Amino acid sequence: MEYEEPKFFHVMQYAARADGDVIDMVSGNPDWEPPAALREALHEYADLPPDDFQYPPSEGLLELREAIAARRNVDPDRVVVTNGTGEANYLAMARAFERGAGDEALLMDPVYPYYPGKTDMLGGESTLVPTERDGGLDVAAIREAASADTALIVLNTPNNPTGAVYGTDAIREVVAIAEAVDALVVVDEVYDHYDLTGEFESALTLSSDRVIVTSGFSKSMAITGFRVGYGVFPEAHVGDAKTRHMLVNVTGARPSQYAVHHALAETPPDYYAEARDLLAARADAFTDALDAAGAEYTRPEGAFYVLARFDGFPGTMANVKRLVDEAGVAGMPGDAFGTARDEWIRFALVTPRAAEAAERLTDYFAADAPDPR
Amino acid sequence: MEYEEPKFFHVMQYAARADGDVIDMVSGNPDWEPPAALREALHEYADLPPDDFQYPPSEGLLELREAIAARRNVDPDRVVVTNGTGEANYLAMARAFERGAGDEALLMDPVYPYYPGKTDMLGGESTLVPTERDGGLDVAAIREAASADTALIVLNTPNNPTGAVYGTDAIREVVAIAEAVDALVVVDEVYDHYDLTGEFESALTLSSDRVIVTSGFSKSMAITGFRVGYGVFPEAHVGDAKTRHMLVNVTGARPSQYAVHHALAETPPDYYAEARDLLAARADAFTDALDAAGAEYTRPEGAFYVLARFDGFPGTMANVKRLVDEAGVAGMPGDAFGTARDEWIRFALVTPRAAEAAERLTDYFAADAPDPR
Repeated sequence: MEYEEPKFFHVMQYAARADGDVIDMVSGNPDWEPPAALREALHEYADLPPDDFQYPPSEGLLELREAIAARRNVDPDRVVVTNGTGEANYLAMARAFERGAGDEALLMDPVYPYYPGKTDMLGGESTLVPTERDGGLDVAAIREAASADTALIVLNTPNNPTGAVYGTDAIREVVAIAEAVDALVVVDEVYDHYDLTGEFESALTLSSDRVIVTSGFSKSMAITGFRVGYGVFPEAHVGDAKTRHMLVNVTGARPSQYAVHHALAETPPDYYAEARDLLAARADAFTDALDAAGAEYTRPEGAFYVLARFDGFPGTMANVKRLVDEAGVAGMPGDAFGTARDEWIRFALVTPRAAEAAERLTDYFAADAPDPR
Repeated sequence: MEYEEPKFFHVMQYAARADGDVIDMVSGNPDWEPPAALREALHEYADLPPDDFQYPPSEGLLELREAIAARRNVDPDRVVVTNGTGEANYLAMARAFERGAGDEALLMDPVYPYYPGKTDMLGGESTLVPTERDGGLDVAAIREAASADTALIVLNTPNNPTGAVYGTDAIREVVAIAEAVDALVVVDEVYDHYDLTGEFESALTLSSDRVIVTSGFSKSMAITGFRVGYGVFPEAHVGDAKTRHMLVNVTGARPSQYAVHHALAETPPDYYAEARDLLAARADAFTDALDAAGAEYTRPEGAFYVLARFDGFPGTMANVKRLVDEAGVAGMPGDAFGTARDEWIRFALVTPRAAEAAERLTDYFAADAPDPR
């Protein structure tokens, strides 16, 4: 399987070259304003003395780590600030494999393509475990797949691409399975601010020494380009994660860390609530239109995405290009996300034109039911 | 061998806790102003629309890659913008090992401790090859050490910690050795703006498909905390380097890249010349005082450092602490840099108090010749 990014660029480029107007529902980049305090802090930073332009501590600015630790209710020593959630996942997954406790990663299918990509780079083997049709965890399937060779189980909640939010009980069962086979569980919670159910709970509440939680500010502050993420590691693993972080990156970018720290301290809860409400309204409008188009879909419980299935129109790259040309809507082929959602297409809700896109899809599938491909 | 950073912090913390006034000659952080255009660009960036706060291309902002490529006289497709020179070295070294062309890295001794650290993390084996007493490359020793198991030779010029600038002829010979044993040569040129000889030439002038050059803006723009570096890879290797970069970091921080791009375009040559002249003046003052103290040292041809040897006072951590307490000067123990300079202590010139520190050393070693330890 290829990684998401090349396919993502492939679709983006195709859409950009198309003749007509195309609505981009490919990328996961928020389209709303970052916190005002973030912009202010960047201005402030730009005028600081030269000392403040030098290396922060390798594991991140202390005040930022403390703020993260306070919010997460953990010891600051367990927090490593990383170059985005991507690096945090890399460190966490590397830690799982380097213990000599097996070579296999259990990944949920549909899967965010970076997970198998990182697994492969780290010399591990991916096993895809299908989730339920609604995107929920299939704990029995995970139990069946787990073996002595399993070093790692990766969960992502709220989930990209399914929009599922995993219940704490299910995660607890997965952690018990991991304990039984000496695996670590990496829980990527980067969409934690976009829980539409009100029931999301961090896996840190389990207080398990098997669990590494990763997250970041790319999505919550609408700053995917700032590259500020973090991992919360169990005490037994945080030292090795810090060493790898140092040897790979030395440290993360200080202007970004400074701005995020101030934004974290000074941004009112309303900012996050407004972004969440905006996304919920888009999800409603989009799924209403999918109903009208006769599509199957999963109503997102969180994150930025809707997976939809149109009868006789599988989620291949060819069909995605057809939608670009004939409907003026760009999505991501379901086969970019493993094998479980070949039939589906992922639409990202991070565009103000989500409702308009849904209408285009309705018109397209109503007017001219396409031939199966 | 431990990595530099923990020892670095150890000495810094010891110095901070000391009773008296201590001059810090430990860290390699420039103490001068960044380019004015960099500050201006950060202000400008802080007011850009939300789109500009999202992911830049994984391999870096196109305009920055093009500016680097133009300066380096290479195809922009060969340039990967990284999270500092540290990540560029990591990508380059990983590329050398993952080819299945051996497990050994030849590292020059004294050695920048991150190189053996990265080698170890990547599953390779370090072999330290002593340099000449003046820090110059010992090509014959490299030839003798090279074998079929050699995957990688790492050079750093201008050199940390010796201050040596390698001649192009010597590097060409090393590249020929690498060709003979199917190794890659990584040349870390992060101090390229601090060549005091006027004779430094980039290894890119060799146009070899064996050579990966790494560098960055941490030192040249006095912004070690911004994390903007780059690697220039041969065509055959750039694709794999980009994939690893994407899987580890997704991309580097955009505010930093934006600011560096503008600073690169708008900063006059005077800025770099002034910093170099400042460093040259400090090197003169410091080495004059070392003469007075009866120390052996290497006059730096480039970079930020002077290695000095005081008779009967080897460069151990214990002696470095003694200098902190008794002379009020903090340096780095020579044994942090491999085995070839156990007797030596590294002093970084990036403090306005370099001359004062030298006087303290002169007084200390003149007044009370210490017992050998």
